Amino acid sequence: MPGDAYEALTDESLPRRLGAVPQVAGRIGGTPETWAVREVGDGNLNLVFIVTGSAGGVVVKQALPYVRLVGESWPLALYRAFFEHHALVRQAARDPGSVPEVFHFDEAQSLIAMEYLHPHVILRYKMIAGERVEGLGDFLGTHCARMAFRGSELHMASAEKKADVALFAGNVEIPAITEALVFTDPYYAAEMNRHTEGLDPVVTALREDVALKAEVQKLFVKFATNTETMLHGDLHTGSVMSTATESRIIDPEFAQYGPMGFDIGMLTANYLMAYFSQPAHRAEDELHGYQEWLLRVVMDTFGAFDAEFRRLWANERTGMLYPARLFEDQGHSSELARDAVLAAIWQDALGFCGIEMHRRILGLAHNADFESIEDPRARAPLEARSLMMGRAVVLDRAGIGNAAALTAMARRFGKETFP
Amino acid sequence: MPGDAYEALTDESLPRRLGAVPQVAGRIGGTPETWAVREVGDGNLNLVFIVTGSAGGVVVKQALPYVRLVGESWPLALYRAFFEHHALVRQAARDPGSVPEVFHFDEAQSLIAMEYLHPHVILRYKMIAGERVEGLGDFLGTHCARMAFRGSELHMASAEKKADVALFAGNVEIPAITEALVFTDPYYAAEMNRHTEGLDPVVTALREDVALKAEVQKLFVKFATNTETMLHGDLHTGSVMSTATESRIIDPEFAQYGPMGFDIGMLTANYLMAYFSQPAHRAEDELHGYQEWLLRVVMDTFGAFDAEFRRLWANERTGMLYPARLFEDQGHSSELARDAVLAAIWQDALGFCGIEMHRRILGLAHNADFESIEDPRARAPLEARSLMMGRAVVLDRAGIGNAAALTAMARRFGKETFP
Repeated sequence: MPGDAYEALTDESLPRRLGAVPQVAGRIGGTPETWAVREVGDGNLNLVFIVTGSAGGVVVKQALPYVRLVGESWPLALYRAFFEHHALVRQAARDPGSVPEVFHFDEAQSLIAMEYLHPHVILRYKMIAGERVEGLGDFLGTHCARMAFRGSELHMASAEKKADVALFAGNVEIPAITEALVFTDPYYAAEMNRHTEGLDPVVTALREDVALKAEVQKLFVKFATNTETMLHGDLHTGSVMSTATESRIIDPEFAQYGPMGFDIGMLTANYLMAYFSQPAHRAEDELHGYQEWLLRVVMDTFGAFDAEFRRLWANERTGMLYPARLFEDQGHSSELARDAVLAAIWQDALGFCGIEMHRRILGLAHNADFESIEDPRARAPLEARSLMMGRAVVLDRAGIGNAAALTAMARRFGKETFP
Repeated sequence: MPGDAYEALTDESLPRRLGAVPQVAGRIGGTPETWAVREVGDGNLNLVFIVTGSAGGVVVKQALPYVRLVGESWPLALYRAFFEHHALVRQAARDPGSVPEVFHFDEAQSLIAMEYLHPHVILRYKMIAGERVEGLGDFLGTHCARMAFRGSELHMASAEKKADVALFAGNVEIPAITEALVFTDPYYAAEMNRHTEGLDPVVTALREDVALKAEVQKLFVKFATNTETMLHGDLHTGSVMSTATESRIIDPEFAQYGPMGFDIGMLTANYLMAYFSQPAHRAEDELHGYQEWLLRVVMDTFGAFDAEFRRLWANERTGMLYPARLFEDQGHSSELARDAVLAAIWQDALGFCGIEMHRRILGLAHNADFESIEDPRARAPLEARSLMMGRAVVLDRAGIGNAAALTAMARRFGKETFP
């Protein structure tokens, strides 16, 4: 229905609108009047409906023309659904089975109808509840490696990749959110910021640290002016849905081109914040074991990333960068070059990780790991560990050689009291 | 005349086509039949005409649908004139007076009519002839700083800059030339390469140097996946026209977004190749003085770049990167951050400089500094110095602290005999 003016869906209007789309109606089954419709969006930006019927269910996600978390005073372009759809298509191609299957996209309505994942639960809530997910680090590390490699000119034809950079450069408003909320606002007393009472001394120390701010801006330049690969752009534990044995990635509406280390770095920060929040969520007898499982996930994620990246380097290096005709075809190994690329990704990942460990505590968008701790006197010291480790990760990352060193650092900061 | 099918101009057709364009005809004067038309293109890609009449002259540059240097077997998109025009407009805005004034752009004909620079001469030929240009380094260093800073998100509004990145991402074929001829082909025995006989041992040593190739690919990644600012993209001494006291930049058809250090690095390589070629062009009594003048230009270029970049940092930092609200507004100096940015630009510039010092001797597109040396036995040892210093610059650039160290290195290599 091109030209069909945008209208935010309601429980009532949804069956009417989607009843006429066979690839959606068929998945739900029965007549639209019999469908059960539930709005479940708990994110910051969108309406999300679960629609079920006699044959099964679908999820319908619709962009709202404003930031839901803030209200209509912060308008936001609906075109982000267009980019989310493009990102989902690329994710499905580059890592089959990693994202929900798309059944229908309606650009005028900024609406995507997709696979209903159940009994999957948002990974963040599983971590708060102390539940383990088999193969989690392997899945996410492999996914990050596939997206990083296959979306870059290590693999893609250059003309195709440049056309894609041009396409995603049209997504201006969404990266602007990250640019402000991740890289700028947390580091000064911006209007929309908030933080737990009791944290003031630590927050002041961070905001007075000029070397830290300079390093964060250096990473910001990298985020804003680098087009190595297509990023998810918001890959935290709230963008993963899991059962006990299987996981999927959701919500790539912040997709943009950027540095290969960004997604895995942001994800790692969210593992580490889950780690630091655990003392408020677990009884003593379960705490250590679950925290160690979380650090195991950090190790597995980077282990899988490295292994998959090396495999792709050996087998799918078809792009113009580090071409075989300069290395293998001359009888020269490219392994040292590959290791240098991996080391640079690791360093970038650490930088973005440290920043994410700040902004979820200092900025506008907090996360449930800490927010669900009701008593600020319990919350503040745990958040302080994340803030202080974040600073150390950003400033001292050249000395953090691998994931084992990073997890050792988390164990150390987990015992500290700040300020 | 939209829809007017492309036709390569001739001396005869040019007056017919441009006689009807008042802003061109008026500058030339008289009736089109009386105009004097000379084709003077000595570049690799285009037709260039000087058209003079009773009132003055204009230069008419028209893209050809193939690489002139190679012939019709290498077709090349005419759309590059569109990007050259866009680049000229931005250069004129960001550094007024630095480029020829544009009088007329005809997209269908891939044709730009612009200011006739006279008595300006291509800088490369002046350097071969041993002529000095007053204020050269100041002009070029200031120009590079203005283009780098004012084309970046240190200065530009982010939405505007991202739209411009999308626009220039459409220029696929032209960057592909740089990607192949600068970063890839010189480092293996590619079909279109050629080099002076006698250089084989040095060439083999470079192509067998896996660490060098890996470092070049690292710089290639930076060139291909970085959008810090709009580059000229081909800023060598053949893209500068000078009198004894005044200079202009021409030929930005390789404009693309890329790292801030690229243009000044490529330019520096061309100064250094002029330096190394001088023993074949100068009598003993003039040699030392002229070579020292060339190294003075290197110093002046970076001195002016630094000074202008600092001035712009202080006065025009209106973009989202390193915002004053994180630094000066908090009573924090941003000078250390600025110096780190300048140091990173310097390191990138060195890397690109070293690569340019290779490709002009190993690749397809050589330069007149060396090519005009007829005797290969005189040419080879001078080229060998450029090749070997290029390698040292790429591999050891972290240890080259400033332009004085770089020029000292040139003096050392200028006395060596290779292999």
